Amino acid sequence: MAAATQDFSSATTPSAAKANVSHPLCPLTASEITTTANLLRSVWPANIDLRFKVITLDEPPKKQMIPYLEAEHSGRPLPQIPRKAFVSYYIRNTDRFHEAVVNLSAGRVESNVRLGPNMHGNGDYEEILLVEKNALEDEGVKAALAKLKLPEGTAVTADPWIYGSDGINDDERLYQVFLYMRDPANPSELDSNHYAFPLPISPVLECNNYTVIRIDYLPTGADNTVHEPRPYEPVPANEYIPEAQPSLRKDLKPLRVIQPEGASFTLTPAGETGHVLEWQKWSFRVGYNQREGMVLYDVRYDSRPLFYRLSLSDMNIPYADPRHPYHKKAAYDLGDAGAGAMANNLKLGCDCLGHIQYLSAVITDDKGKPTPMENCVCIHEQDAGIGWKHTNYRTGRAAVVRNRELVLQSIITVSNYEYILAFMFNQAGEVIYEVRATGILSTQPIDHELDKVGVPFGTVVHPGVLAVHHQHIFSLRIDPMLEGHENRLVYDEAHAMPIDKEWNPHGVGYTVSETVVEKAGGLDIDVDANRVFKIQNPRVLNPVNGKPVAYKIHVPPFQKMLAHPSSFHFKRAEFADHNIYVTTHRDRELYAGGWYTNQSRGGTGVRSFAARNDSVKDTDIVVWVQFGINHVPRIEDFPVMPCEILKVSLKPVNFFDKNPALDVPPSEQSFNQSTLASNLHHQPAVETVVGKGGECCGPAEQPGKSKL
Amino acid sequence: MAAATQDFSSATTPSAAKANVSHPLCPLTASEITTTANLLRSVWPANIDLRFKVITLDEPPKKQMIPYLEAEHSGRPLPQIPRKAFVSYYIRNTDRFHEAVVNLSAGRVESNVRLGPNMHGNGDYEEILLVEKNALEDEGVKAALAKLKLPEGTAVTADPWIYGSDGINDDERLYQVFLYMRDPANPSELDSNHYAFPLPISPVLECNNYTVIRIDYLPTGADNTVHEPRPYEPVPANEYIPEAQPSLRKDLKPLRVIQPEGASFTLTPAGETGHVLEWQKWSFRVGYNQREGMVLYDVRYDSRPLFYRLSLSDMNIPYADPRHPYHKKAAYDLGDAGAGAMANNLKLGCDCLGHIQYLSAVITDDKGKPTPMENCVCIHEQDAGIGWKHTNYRTGRAAVVRNRELVLQSIITVSNYEYILAFMFNQAGEVIYEVRATGILSTQPIDHELDKVGVPFGTVVHPGVLAVHHQHIFSLRIDPMLEGHENRLVYDEAHAMPIDKEWNPHGVGYTVSETVVEKAGGLDIDVDANRVFKIQNPRVLNPVNGKPVAYKIHVPPFQKMLAHPSSFHFKRAEFADHNIYVTTHRDRELYAGGWYTNQSRGGTGVRSFAARNDSVKDTDIVVWVQFGINHVPRIEDFPVMPCEILKVSLKPVNFFDKNPALDVPPSEQSFNQSTLASNLHHQPAVETVVGKGGECCGPAEQPGKSKL
Repeated sequence: MAAATQDFSSATTPSAAKANVSHPLCPLTASEITTTANLLRSVWPANIDLRFKVITLDEPPKKQMIPYLEAEHSGRPLPQIPRKAFVSYYIRNTDRFHEAVVNLSAGRVESNVRLGPNMHGNGDYEEILLVEKNALEDEGVKAALAKLKLPEGTAVTADPWIYGSDGINDDERLYQVFLYMRDPANPSELDSNHYAFPLPISPVLECNNYTVIRIDYLPTGADNTVHEPRPYEPVPANEYIPEAQPSLRKDLKPLRVIQPEGASFTLTPAGETGHVLEWQKWSFRVGYNQREGMVLYDVRYDSRPLFYRLSLSDMNIPYADPRHPYHKKAAYDLGDAGAGAMANNLKLGCDCLGHIQYLSAVITDDKGKPTPMENCVCIHEQDAGIGWKHTNYRTGRAAVVRNRELVLQSIITVSNYEYILAFMFNQAGEVIYEVRATGILSTQPIDHELDKVGVPFGTVVHPGVLAVHHQHIFSLRIDPMLEGHENRLVYDEAHAMPIDKEWNPHGVGYTVSETVVEKAGGLDIDVDANRVFKIQNPRVLNPVNGKPVAYKIHVPPFQKMLAHPSSFHFKRAEFADHNIYVTTHRDRELYAGGWYTNQSRGGTGVRSFAARNDSVKDTDIVVWVQFGINHVPRIEDFPVMPCEILKVSLKPVNFFDKNPALDVPPSEQSFNQSTLASNLHHQPAVETVVGKGGECCGPAEQPGKSKL
Repeated sequence: MAAATQDFSSATTPSAAKANVSHPLCPLTASEITTTANLLRSVWPANIDLRFKVITLDEPPKKQMIPYLEAEHSGRPLPQIPRKAFVSYYIRNTDRFHEAVVNLSAGRVESNVRLGPNMHGNGDYEEILLVEKNALEDEGVKAALAKLKLPEGTAVTADPWIYGSDGINDDERLYQVFLYMRDPANPSELDSNHYAFPLPISPVLECNNYTVIRIDYLPTGADNTVHEPRPYEPVPANEYIPEAQPSLRKDLKPLRVIQPEGASFTLTPAGETGHVLEWQKWSFRVGYNQREGMVLYDVRYDSRPLFYRLSLSDMNIPYADPRHPYHKKAAYDLGDAGAGAMANNLKLGCDCLGHIQYLSAVITDDKGKPTPMENCVCIHEQDAGIGWKHTNYRTGRAAVVRNRELVLQSIITVSNYEYILAFMFNQAGEVIYEVRATGILSTQPIDHELDKVGVPFGTVVHPGVLAVHHQHIFSLRIDPMLEGHENRLVYDEAHAMPIDKEWNPHGVGYTVSETVVEKAGGLDIDVDANRVFKIQNPRVLNPVNGKPVAYKIHVPPFQKMLAHPSSFHFKRAEFADHNIYVTTHRDRELYAGGWYTNQSRGGTGVRSFAARNDSVKDTDIVVWVQFGINHVPRIEDFPVMPCEILKVSLKPVNFFDKNPALDVPPSEQSFNQSTLASNLHHQPAVETVVGKGGECCGPAEQPGKSKL
């Protein structure tokens, strides 16, 4: 550590010059994962086989990290912080679930406890494949499928679902498996959309040996009656793959983003797994873990501290169908599966445009072996339109800058569904968290006689296919450090002034008042009062107007969870009932729905943290921002859904002393090099096309001549 | 007309092959404006001078246009529709305000009426310049300014404001002028930001001879007391122009949008002034007028009719300061000034990236002379991220398309403030209307002793400068024709099912119900019920699920007008109290705040149209969508404001039988040609740069080497 300390002796911010210095917030390396697994195995008898669920960085306590970051940014010697791994695991083929902390610096298992009832591990990739296999190979399932009289050669597929909770014989960990088939008319197409062919049979498996313990027949009518599976009636396929379309559009011309000088950001590795990203006065560390995927630490603007930690903390997707077994559908894609574990391997030229940097990560597999997550994060810049503009009508002079954004994007596939998750930063000091919901609706069979009648809790999206309404409720965790770690949450409201002969004789006045949130708890947006929440540091005042520095939270209101407060859905999703939660910081309080969401019972999430009723004024607080949509499916959302976009923005309020984007260079043609479609009916502008190797060809062949 | 009819004989949609055929919805040509002015002058004695406010297309009655469009799209002979101009004007140097309709086909003035009391014309450019001049040259104003003891050589500027209404001696048309000065330390800089130097003196002018009739001293303290102007105390400037910044960012690398084959849209002129735009199955006509700027007509997707007419109908910006004369500040930028008349001349490479098409328009000046509005609309495509994606985790195959958008953008400068207004279309059948609010806050002086204390109705944004809170309330007018002209407005709501032992034993079920709006009126969003409004045609059913075809309206909720219902602000802004209005169609009912907003009294806008209480079920309806922000200024919004973005989306619901973007070609590297920052610490990828003439240079010089 001494050498590392020396490395930082003249630094005021992490910078490229201090390349490749590891850091306490770096994700575990592959060898640390291996060491952790080995150390943990070493405390068990040799004949005990462990099934690992999570091996991840045990982040240092904040009370250690704060002095560390202060030393780092002021160039003082760095304190020593032991490196630790957090582990959750099963004794393989049992329900004995444990969590442990391994001290890697000391080379020993520091804690290792078996977890009590109703605490279950997440699903993992290997397990999910095994559940699929065992469900499909089960003789009872085969017998049930036979009743459908499917065409010979039909491929049946299984989507294992986290069982959910209803309190009925569900203390042990289970899987509910929904069955589909690929298009029987096209059995060799492995990418046929099986969600267009849901089957009314649903096996349930236990998780010691992953055997089928029950086969549910699904309700397919207008009510909750269940009939024996009926023979299959042929319906057309509904494919999303391009080659299955009658034709593709031929009139879309290429649009390319060219960054001839490369990107404007600097990514500096920190050890094997960490990265410092610097861009347009922003700096932060990029972390990654199995559960949250991307995590940002130590976010600063122009060296001023803003956020200690930013991450998507949780999400819940409860479904509207009240009938067994659908009433249990309530996915927690982060806690039940893992945004980090389910991330796509992003491909150049498919998932972003421009000059792209990819990051890879490493997580554990079920055997404690490091598993690479390649290209799980992409980093690029994008143009987001005009940033600001003013034209002086007296002189005719326009001043205009474009809004460049830095994007860190991860895309997760959780079975049928996709989420495109992105942190974005701009030059006006704003942080944006964007979620795009896409992918394929979770479908279930509906009797053909209901195809054109429907049911009130879902939409028929294809003959015999019902997509049930569902809510997506997300929780973004903001651990602020606005000019220091003692912050408060306040909200502004705008209210009409009373009509008053002296003060407001015309009835037009209104004022904005600020209210300090004194106690931990859940709070709500009130559009009619223009209630806006702000994270504030009252000890640091704006030099111009004397107002405390703050960041406001722009978040669209959403319909809170519809399930009844007495329901398991409601009890488990401890964040789904308020737009905002504020709590005091505690190190293990990272997940709004609790640490273990699989078949959870509630009582372990943010509602419970808030129930301590702590004072949250001018202390180390955490702000949890909820947002979401009630997805009432349209037929246009099938067979794959056009992105639905949600954004949360964090914007400075009296944090700077003027528009921080004032110093963005003006938007000029010499820089942007746009091209002009100068007149109608001209031929396309003659352009040259740069080839793969950088060589230059003549004017491009015009496959379809433009009219411009 | 016979020849024109022949031209359309084989057409089913307007298309490039039918180039340059005029159309009843084309804006007036320059010669039509001249002819209109001359015809109107001809009915007055020669010694009467007319001051024109508006000369614009008098759109044909819808009952004529519907058969015309039907004939056009089915290739039948076209009915004859007379060409008419709408005019509003004053007898110059009087308050005699008229409106007229001139039949250009017949060459005669068809109607010409003097308008009654409290009907006033909009401000126009020539008049505003005259008001500025007369205000600044007034001896009383000069005497008042002398009290400020401004440094010698200081340039004082005048921002004329529409007077507003308070019912106190304001039956005649007036201007309230706010005075500022340019930075006294830098008097030669014509683009110095005078909004950083507001002065406490405000002359009022009448509009016959534009003379000063009163000089208001402005309240500058915490209450409504007014003191004599005090001598100026020097404060620093606060400039937005780039050369006035201490330094500009040097680390922003170019990001260029290259469309080597041109753009994907086809713009076909229709006569001298009209355009048919076709892009990705969309087609519509682009119109333009003095008031609304861009207007879209006959919007169709894949030839299926969607919207007869789309335009921004109105906006209102009421301010929060209750004190005289600020209590009257309530701008109607469309009705008082004109989005068409105030549009920027957009510059290549500054206001958009990519391959840009500009449209120009023509409006009248005060003498009835055609005035070109050059490059007032730009048309381009943009990449809007991923359109849809799904990865089959079994095969690992990802299917992904990008979301290309077509953008029609206009930027208006209304004195201090800018609005960037855009219609956008995508490949999933969605129409988006986007407003970006930017420009400079309307400022007023505040005493320095309040700089760090403030007032509750505004924010101090600079020493001695107050930016008062204000609401921006917009009204988007949607005249739908979803598969025909008889449409209805409905809304969906999601409600929890009651807990029921049989039907909803676990308390998780919820259903969506649809309610038909029977009568004209104002309606509101209810986030807690997930209330979503849809325009629907119940006579056309989705072939798969039997639901009526519809488009839903996604619009963010906003705080409604805060001014008291008894106030003039409230009475005048007849749209500001509800998220949605629905009315039956009438030809002259185009503007939500009424036809003449300048010093209006109310009673002529959408609230009044709705008060007819017409049945709106399955008839020709108009839907007015309101949205807005309560702008509580941040110091970061000064001296120029980072864009605040608002979006309204219209999305198909059961209009198509599947995702309409399924046939978008896959997002592939061969098409997108992104570049890879493959590893850290590499040099920038060698690129060639295509020169102006298309010639190809060697690897670009790297002014600042990228770390990537």
